[in-house]
Amino acid sequence: MKPRAILHASQLVTLAGPKRPRVGAELSALGIIEDGGMLVRDGVIVATGSSDQIARDLPNDIEVIEAHGRVVLPGFVDAHAHPVFGGTRVDEFEMRARGATYEEIAASGGGIRSTVRKTRAASEAELLAQAQKRVQWFLRSGTTTMEAKSGYGLSLEEELKILRVIRQLNETSALEFVPTFLGAHAIPEEFADAPEQYVTLVIDEMLPTVAEQGLAEYCDIFCERGYFDLADSEKILKAAQSHGLRLRMHVDQLTNSGGAFLAARIGAATADHLEQTNEAEIAALAEAGVQPVLLPASVYALGKTRYPKARAMIDAGLAVVLGTDFNPGSSPTPSIPMVLSLACTQMKMTPAEGITASTINAAYSLNRGERIGSLEAGKAGNFTVFDCADYREIAYWFGTPLVHSVYVEGECVCSAR
Amino acid sequence: MKPRAILHASQLVTLAGPKRPRVGAELSALGIIEDGGMLVRDGVIVATGSSDQIARDLPNDIEVIEAHGRVVLPGFVDAHAHPVFGGTRVDEFEMRARGATYEEIAASGGGIRSTVRKTRAASEAELLAQAQKRVQWFLRSGTTTMEAKSGYGLSLEEELKILRVIRQLNETSALEFVPTFLGAHAIPEEFADAPEQYVTLVIDEMLPTVAEQGLAEYCDIFCERGYFDLADSEKILKAAQSHGLRLRMHVDQLTNSGGAFLAARIGAATADHLEQTNEAEIAALAEAGVQPVLLPASVYALGKTRYPKARAMIDAGLAVVLGTDFNPGSSPTPSIPMVLSLACTQMKMTPAEGITASTINAAYSLNRGERIGSLEAGKAGNFTVFDCADYREIAYWFGTPLVHSVYVEGECVCSAR
Repeated sequence: MKPRAILHASQLVTLAGPKRPRVGAELSALGIIEDGGMLVRDGVIVATGSSDQIARDLPNDIEVIEAHGRVVLPGFVDAHAHPVFGGTRVDEFEMRARGATYEEIAASGGGIRSTVRKTRAASEAELLAQAQKRVQWFLRSGTTTMEAKSGYGLSLEEELKILRVIRQLNETSALEFVPTFLGAHAIPEEFADAPEQYVTLVIDEMLPTVAEQGLAEYCDIFCERGYFDLADSEKILKAAQSHGLRLRMHVDQLTNSGGAFLAARIGAATADHLEQTNEAEIAALAEAGVQPVLLPASVYALGKTRYPKARAMIDAGLAVVLGTDFNPGSSPTPSIPMVLSLACTQMKMTPAEGITASTINAAYSLNRGERIGSLEAGKAGNFTVFDCADYREIAYWFGTPLVHSVYVEGECVCSAR
Repeated sequence: MKPRAILHASQLVTLAGPKRPRVGAELSALGIIEDGGMLVRDGVIVATGSSDQIARDLPNDIEVIEAHGRVVLPGFVDAHAHPVFGGTRVDEFEMRARGATYEEIAASGGGIRSTVRKTRAASEAELLAQAQKRVQWFLRSGTTTMEAKSGYGLSLEEELKILRVIRQLNETSALEFVPTFLGAHAIPEEFADAPEQYVTLVIDEMLPTVAEQGLAEYCDIFCERGYFDLADSEKILKAAQSHGLRLRMHVDQLTNSGGAFLAARIGAATADHLEQTNEAEIAALAEAGVQPVLLPASVYALGKTRYPKARAMIDAGLAVVLGTDFNPGSSPTPSIPMVLSLACTQMKMTPAEGITASTINAAYSLNRGERIGSLEAGKAGNFTVFDCADYREIAYWFGTPLVHSVYVEGECVCSAR
C-alpha cells in the first residue's frame, strides 16, 4: 500500500489531546490545524501538521489527497447501535404519526418484540445481507467504527446468530464493529408469564456461551419499567463481569428507573439514554467516571421533547458521548451528522463538543481510545473528508450529504462523488 | 432523446387524482401502483400502469430503467426556499447552541441583516457559484422544482441581482426555479430610522422594475413584529397584485401578527409558516382557499417546539403544503426527506399526507399543478427513484441517503450511486 498524504485541508480537526476521555472545556479543544496536512503509512498516521511541514518530507511514491476547501475529521465512532435486525418497523412509524405512543405500541405486541419475530424468522445469511446494506449508510455518513448490539434474538441460539452476523460484518466490511451482548433487551413473549426464568436463562446459558465463544466485548441491559428492574439488572451485569465482559446500560429512557446509580455502583463503562436522569444521579455518574452516551435521535424520532441534560452533564465533568441508537423502532438513523444537528439545536451542545463526543470520547467509551478517535501519530488512519470549509457546517447543514470520502487505515472505502 | 420506461417499481407512487390541490382524505390517496411501470417520451409521461401493461407495448428503441425493489415518486416540489445568499450563518448557529435566541441575534445586528451584508458584498457570479453548489444538494435529495425568493438584497439593484441569479440558475440547472420577489424581507439597516421610506421604495421602484423585467412570478412579504406590519404588508401586496404578481406571505412565524386574515382577505396563493396561527385563522384560510405552506425544519433548527397545527389544518380542509424554508439562518436544510421526517414525527402528519404535501399540492401552490407534481400521462417526466421498497421509508430512515437517481423530463440528472 502506497503512503498517503492529505494536504491543504481548510481544517484538519485532529482532536489531539490528553490520552483519556475529554471533560469540561476539553470538549471544545479540537486541535484544529488550518491548511492542515497528514501523512499515513501502512494504515497508520505518521505525522500531522501544516501542509508546508507535511509537504516538506514527502516520500517519492506518495499518493496525495488534495483537500483544499474541505474539512478532515477522524472517522466518527458510533457508541450505541443495533444494526442487526430483520425487516423494518415502518408500520409502527405510521402508527406513531397517527398518534400512538411507543409504549402503547409495545403493549399491543409491537415494539422490540415485533422485531424479535422478524429477526428469528430470518436466516443468518438474510440478516447479514440486510445489515450489509445498512452498513453502507453508516460509512456514507462518515462513521468508521461502531458498536453493534445483539438483542433481537432473545434465545440462546438466536442471540448467537446475531452475534455471529456482527462478527461476519466485522470481517467483511471496512467498518470496525464492537460487539455487545444485549440478551436482556426485553422479556421474550414465551417468557411473558415467567420473566425470572428468562433472567436465569441469560445468566446460566447465554452469558457463559457468548463469553466462551468470544462473541462480545460488552454486555448491555435495558433497565426500564416493563423490561428489567434494578435487581435483575444487577444480577445479569455482575454475571457478565464475572465472564470478563465490560458493561453498558440502557438507563432512564422512558422512566427514571434508578439505573444511573446502579451504573455508577457497578462500574459500567457507559450509561446510555439518560433522558430522565436527575442531578444527583449525574453527580454519581461523574464520581464513578461512567461515560454518558446521549442518544437524541431516539428522543426526536419518538416525537418526545425531553432530551438528556447535556449541559448539566458537561458542567458536572462527565465525558459525554453521542451515538445514533440506530434501530428499527425508536431511532432509524445511521447518521452521526444528524445526531450532531440534534445535539446543537435540541441539547444546546456546541458543534465542537458534539465532534469530541462522537470521536475521541466515543472511542474511549468502547475501549479503543488509544487506537482511534483522533488524528495523531501512531493512530489508525481512519478519517473522513467533508465538502465544507468549517467543521461546524456538518451540524449546521442538516439533512445534507456533505461527506466527500471516507478512509479506513489509509484506504478509501467510500467516495460519495 | 430515446423513450424511457421504468419497470418493476415496488411502488410507483403516481399521486393520480383530481386536477386540483388535495384536501382531507385525498391527502392520503397516493395512487400507488405495485410492480409499477411508466413510459416517458420526449420528456413527457405517456403512460403509467402495471409493469406488464407497460412492457407489452414497448417501442424498439426503448431504454429501460429497472426499479425492482425501489420506490418511484414524482420529483419533490419545494414551495418555499431562499437559495441565493452570500456566505453562511454558522457563527449564529453556534451562538444559538450556546443559548442565544434567533430574536436576540437579530437584535444585535445578526439575522437576516448579516446575510444581506454578505450578499451585497458578493458579485453576481459569486452568488451564482455558491447557489449552484447548493442546488446539487436539492437534486440529490430528490427535488426537481423549487421556489426561489430574493430578499437578501433589500435595494433595487441588489434585489435585481438576486433575481437575475435565480434566472441564471433556471437556465443552467436541471432544477426548475419559480422566482419570488421578497424585497419586503426585512427593513435594511440604512432605513432603520425610516422604515416607511423603504416601503415606498419597494412599492414605487422595486415592484415596477421587477415586474417589467419579468423577473418574478410571485411577491412575498415577512409579515412579523419588527419587520412589516399588517398595514404595510397590505400596501405592498396590493401593489404587487396590480403588477400581475401572485402572492405568498410569511405569516405567524415568531408571533401572531394577524397576517393569516390578511392572506385570506387579499387572496394570497399561500400563507407560509403559521406556527402561531389559531383556529379562527385556520377557518379563514380554508374559506378563502389559501394553501398553508408548513416549514417544520425552521421550527426544529431554531430549537423551538411549537410546530404549526397540521392536523387542525387538514381537518379544516386546507390543502397543506410542505417546504424546506432553505435559508442560512433558520433552516439550513435542502432536504424534503428531512422535512417529511419532521412532518411525521413532530406534526403527526402521516407519511402519505407528507408526500402529497410535497409533490402535487406544492405544485399547485406554485401554479404548476397541471404540469408537474404527479405521474400521469401528459405531465413532465420528473421523477425520483429511491433505494427502498416502501414510500414510508423515505420519512422513516431519517438522515439517510436513500435517493438512487433523479430524472427531469425523462433525463437522468443525478445518480447517487
